[in-house]
Amino acid sequence: MGQKGAETRDRLLAATQESIESVGYFGTGLNQVIAAGGAPRGSLYFHFPGGKDQLVGESVRRAGQAIGELLDDSANTGLSDAEFATGVLRYLGDRLEQSGWRKGCPVATVALETAASHDTLQEACAEVYADWEALLRARLAHRPDAEDLAVTVLALVEGALLLARTHRSREPLDRVARRLEALLG
Amino acid sequence: MGQKGAETRDRLLAATQESIESVGYFGTGLNQVIAAGGAPRGSLYFHFPGGKDQLVGESVRRAGQAIGELLDDSANTGLSDAEFATGVLRYLGDRLEQSGWRKGCPVATVALETAASHDTLQEACAEVYADWEALLRARLAHRPDAEDLAVTVLALVEGALLLARTHRSREPLDRVARRLEALLG
Repeated sequence: MGQKGAETRDRLLAATQESIESVGYFGTGLNQVIAAGGAPRGSLYFHFPGGKDQLVGESVRRAGQAIGELLDDSANTGLSDAEFATGVLRYLGDRLEQSGWRKGCPVATVALETAASHDTLQEACAEVYADWEALLRARLAHRPDAEDLAVTVLALVEGALLLARTHRSREPLDRVARRLEALLG
Repeated sequence: MGQKGAETRDRLLAATQESIESVGYFGTGLNQVIAAGGAPRGSLYFHFPGGKDQLVGESVRRAGQAIGELLDDSANTGLSDAEFATGVLRYLGDRLEQSGWRKGCPVATVALETAASHDTLQEACAEVYADWEALLRARLAHRPDAEDLAVTVLALVEGALLLARTHRSREPLDRVARRLEALLG
């Protein structure tokens, strides 16, 4: 694939990522993705012969990688566990608020819509969560309860983002951040 | 409305609740709801003149009330805070597993799909979460940090259900339950 093809492919993934984060798998229309990505109609099935499920699956993984890099970067900065975890919450809260409450967790909506019915998408979402959990576990490995704690921190961040999006307010994130400090202090 | 009308209305709400819990707002088709509810086609707009958004909004509230009653009942049983919270997690975990990973939080999928774009549904979801939070706050009112703790417990339960559904496994719920015991013990 030439450079132009790679750019088209990436624009389609970016447009899909925007859409699934805001309205999920079923709410995402391929025509809108093609228009938003500024791509010719035929390019979608050329780049994604598996159609919508392939496009959404790759978008989920692409979004997962971006958050994974954020976790990885901020895990290695000499912060305390509590500073690290509340810093992640603050970053995600900024992103959520600045997006007009559209951008919470880029995986959660698709995960919930497809968990019981679309095996390939369920697998993509499960892999992303497993990757994030492994990063958190590595960051907390110096603690005896690192495995339980990594899942707990991930669940707290996901739950707080869900509540903040639903209430269109940062308050749930701020309240959870205070308890996270106590949990990890 | 006669008894038969009330029954039809309730069957439509129950069928919608099943569907939105499994595949969300955008994944729910009105034809399937009508068929699953065993209702004549015209009855949907007779009982729900506001169409899909009214039907889904009322289903979200109906589901919220059922979980609210569970929270209320188990809040008044002389259990410790930790026993109460882990008992709720266990109940929701049983429900999730027995449903073949379809039934997690009956509100979360719709909440994420519609938070930024459908004001009336966003309000319905936010009200349900606010009700649950108030029940948890009342249950934990004897603690100095009851407000932060209520949001934190709710976020943890929501996040753990999301991870358990996505992984099709109870493990995230079990891990979070252990940390909840430490948090509330």
